[in-house]
Amino acid sequence: MRAQGLFISVEGIDGSGKSTQARLLAEGLAAAGHDVVVTREPGGAPGAEAIRRLLVEGDPARWSAETEILLFNAARRDHLERTIQPALDRGAVVITDRFADSTRVYQGVARANLRPLVDRLHDLVIGIEPDLTFVIDMDARAALARGLARRSGEDRFEELGLGFQEALRAGFLALAQEYPARVQVIDGTRAPDVIAQDMAARVTAHLR
Amino acid sequence: MRAQGLFISVEGIDGSGKSTQARLLAEGLAAAGHDVVVTREPGGAPGAEAIRRLLVEGDPARWSAETEILLFNAARRDHLERTIQPALDRGAVVITDRFADSTRVYQGVARANLRPLVDRLHDLVIGIEPDLTFVIDMDARAALARGLARRSGEDRFEELGLGFQEALRAGFLALAQEYPARVQVIDGTRAPDVIAQDMAARVTAHLR
Ligand SMILES: Nc1ncnc2c1ncn2[C@@H]1O[C@H](COP(=O)(O)OP(=O)(O)O)[C@@H](O)[C@H]1O
Ligand SMILES: Nc1ncnc2c1ncn2[C@@H]1O[C@H](COP(=O)(O)OP(=O)(O)O)[C@@H](O)[C@H]1O
Ligand SMILES: [Mg+2]
Ligand SMILES: [Mg+2]
Repeated sequence: MRAQGLFISVEGIDGSGKSTQARLLAEGLAAAGHDVVVTREPGGAPGAEAIRRLLVEGDPARWSAETEILLFNAARRDHLERTIQPALDRGAVVITDRFADSTRVYQGVARANLRPLVDRLHDLVIGIEPDLTFVIDMDARAALARGLARRSGEDRFEELGLGFQEALRAGFLALAQEYPARVQVIDGTRAPDVIAQDMAARVTAHLR
Repeated sequence: MRAQGLFISVEGIDGSGKSTQARLLAEGLAAAGHDVVVTREPGGAPGAEAIRRLLVEGDPARWSAETEILLFNAARRDHLERTIQPALDRGAVVITDRFADSTRVYQGVARANLRPLVDRLHDLVIGIEPDLTFVIDMDARAALARGLARRSGEDRFEELGLGFQEALRAGFLALAQEYPARVQVIDGTRAPDVIAQDMAARVTAHLR
């Protein structure tokens, strides 16, 4: 089901600036008079946040890749039903910090070769894609160094190291090739306000 | 993947005697020298038990039927990988108190008409069926009265009432028709030791 709102996702490796840019984009759109909902994955609804805790805390080997994909889809389904779809239905702009592309890259490519399972589950229980996806791109080593400055305890994935972050970066760039009409690559090495202006201009162009 | 062990599930409505009979069957088989693992769903492995808590506690409307099906499959996948399959691989008899038939009946029939989704997810991420399934059958009102004597706080499903339990009973009996080679219906109104003897004899027949 699609609706009259606008659905935007912000994707990229850890430390690339997703949360920063999701917030700045929301502030800009709200200042321009839009009804804006900023949300994140995994999580974004009370049930999905409870599932998030199972996913981001604990031993990296806690879940197999397959179980993890199921948990991400359970959280995403809840997020979609309780937060995203109701906001789109009333015409809001929804900006989500990560969505299905993160599962495609983390579980489908970088962690295990399970892209077919990821795709079949997405078709079965999610279905929707964002209207516009920003992949904030930058060198994995520099992004990792940023991220290490703000350890949160939610480190099941970040602890997988530099080689993993490089595989993720390549995975996100490949998705931009795969979905050129939806995914735009953003140079994340610039100053935050410069990136924010760039992204805001692209959203405005999309809204016209 | 199947293995050299024996995989048995015990199914039926709340209060029908599943946990009692799973335990008695395990005791009998262990006394006869078998390597036996008794387990349960949702749960049966540390990760799956954490998912169980999300499923059985809280408001009955906490999850949509679709999200619930995903969470049950995540728990089942973990249970299968960490507990069931390793035990079958070493040749053990695994007795599980509920398995996929409970999802077929609770989510597929009684709570929402989502049997096609349940089946597609099962094929995608579980695959395995028990060698032998016992459906312990009895009147829903009498079973509910038994269950009310031992309230546990895990009552998201039990609180759905008598009409729901009757729909579940009909659903389990329909599964016995659908899978006649695997599912055996057991009269649950008899004394526990009489039922246990009956089930043990059927397992012995199956092992020959
Ligand atoms: N364009 C930028 N240049 C320099 N540092 C940045 C930039 N964007 C974000 N940061 C900083 O990098 C760290 C990670 O940013 P964050 O938005 O949390 O990334 P992500 O959500 O992608 O992990 C934070 O400390 C943030 O302040
Ligand atoms: N055959 C039986 N006859 C009478 N009471 C029983 C019988 N089997 C179990 N009970 C009692 O009924 C209640 C529910 O049994 P239990 O094995 O926990 O059922 P389930 O696991 O199917 O919910 C328990 O108090 C148990 O002692
Ligand atoms: Mg972030
Ligand atoms: Mg029980």
